[in-house]
Amino acid sequence: MNINRYMIKDTKEIRLSKLDANETGDFKTKKEAEAATAKLKKRLAELQDILFAQKKHSLLVILQGMDSSGKDGTVKHIFSGINPQGFIVTSFKKPSLEEEAHDFLWRVHQKTPPKGYISAFNRSHYEDVLVPRVHGSLSKEDAKHRFRYIRQFEEMLVEEGTTIIKLFLHISKEKQLEKIQERLEDPKKHWKFDASDLQEREYWDNYQEAYEEVFKESSTEQTPWFWIPANHRWYRNYLALDIVVKTLEKLDLRYPKLNTPTPDISELISPRH
Amino acid sequence: MNINRYMIKDTKEIRLSKLDANETGDFKTKKEAEAATAKLKKRLAELQDILFAQKKHSLLVILQGMDSSGKDGTVKHIFSGINPQGFIVTSFKKPSLEEEAHDFLWRVHQKTPPKGYISAFNRSHYEDVLVPRVHGSLSKEDAKHRFRYIRQFEEMLVEEGTTIIKLFLHISKEKQLEKIQERLEDPKKHWKFDASDLQEREYWDNYQEAYEEVFKESSTEQTPWFWIPANHRWYRNYLALDIVVKTLEKLDLRYPKLNTPTPDISELISPRH
Repeated sequence: MNINRYMIKDTKEIRLSKLDANETGDFKTKKEAEAATAKLKKRLAELQDILFAQKKHSLLVILQGMDSSGKDGTVKHIFSGINPQGFIVTSFKKPSLEEEAHDFLWRVHQKTPPKGYISAFNRSHYEDVLVPRVHGSLSKEDAKHRFRYIRQFEEMLVEEGTTIIKLFLHISKEKQLEKIQERLEDPKKHWKFDASDLQEREYWDNYQEAYEEVFKESSTEQTPWFWIPANHRWYRNYLALDIVVKTLEKLDLRYPKLNTPTPDISELISPRH
Repeated sequence: MNINRYMIKDTKEIRLSKLDANETGDFKTKKEAEAATAKLKKRLAELQDILFAQKKHSLLVILQGMDSSGKDGTVKHIFSGINPQGFIVTSFKKPSLEEEAHDFLWRVHQKTPPKGYISAFNRSHYEDVLVPRVHGSLSKEDAKHRFRYIRQFEEMLVEEGTTIIKLFLHISKEKQLEKIQERLEDPKKHWKFDASDLQEREYWDNYQEAYEEVFKESSTEQTPWFWIPANHRWYRNYLALDIVVKTLEKLDLRYPKLNTPTPDISELISPRH
């Protein structure tokens, strides 16, 4: 897929309502997409092996999206084939009292990936602008400050060796309702239901606007946002994975060479007389 | 004392060799200074009590200086009278492998003070510019990047409620030698001796230059550096404490009010009939 199509560039013009959450790119069927996804998963495992061996770069994948947009599912699907030793997921929930007593980047900075690692953020520091903006507790001006700190923070991470991928999982309002209903009806999904999701749903339009503000303020050349049509989970998984793989392929990933002269082990191998 | 005298403002002109490490301000004797210091210690304890109760602000005191300049002694003297529950010291040593695998601000960000607290950094993120600059492993340009990240990081902390005081303990080269000799001769001080201090002493001039670069790049209006004449430890303690107290006094520290209506406890107090 040409992933540039999904990169949010012209940030002055972005209107989420104009982006089709049902889109499936070049794929017509789920089967096609799943075959392509399987190949990409193998490729990701290869690339992660080198990343981990080389310990030069790290990758941070930030996942945002409305409730039920499939953040957990995306993490599960795209990263299930890699070496878990080199992978860390952090889900950022409502801040604890200790977290609230610090600046909003404090808890996220701690969870950034060390060299060699891939980290996924399931929600992130963007929630610290989105939620208070929607609920009116953060002024436009204070939000501007936070966006500046976010840009500077991400820029510093990039400069110090972390590649950042920011994915917005885009679902339609109808799809969200469908997912909420599934959670209520399927006993295996009851645990995912949270009454507050229904409350937040009432702020749907405000969230969409707040996201448009996020893209405008934080989709930069170095750390762009990608929007992922997420009504079809098979396309969502394929596309998210494709972006991850293509991004890793742009790095100069190489297995490190032996940094001592190659020892002569012939004596250990050949039988002694 | 007029602490502005010690604020490093005109950062283009700073020459450490022109600053007198033997200075004792308005004090002629140790006794005078110690009496003033005792008063300030009481005042600091009062202020910290309000800071802790109010949980609105936090204070970060960054201590830098050549080896043997008295960073440990300063922490010990100025903060020994306060409530230890609201105070955290972190000594930053050579980074661990885990720390090295992250950006250089990763470990310091974790140790920034939560609201209500005072934190002291015994050495800090400035070491990550000073040491590699002196030993030639960080180019001037890369140092400029790091300085930018430091300014942005500190600005963000300030904006989010942390007041930052940056103290440079200034001793003369002769005084350092004297202190090293003490460490070698006094059995109670043997533990403080580190052979690497003697090696680093050979880079004295380079360190002084690197510090001048630090002041030039990071003494800002919001987060200025102060230089502390530190050949006389009694003046050093007095002045560092005075800067801390005067800085806290500028904040709007107030005990919080009861946020419920005052309950009528007369019934609990007066005897029942």
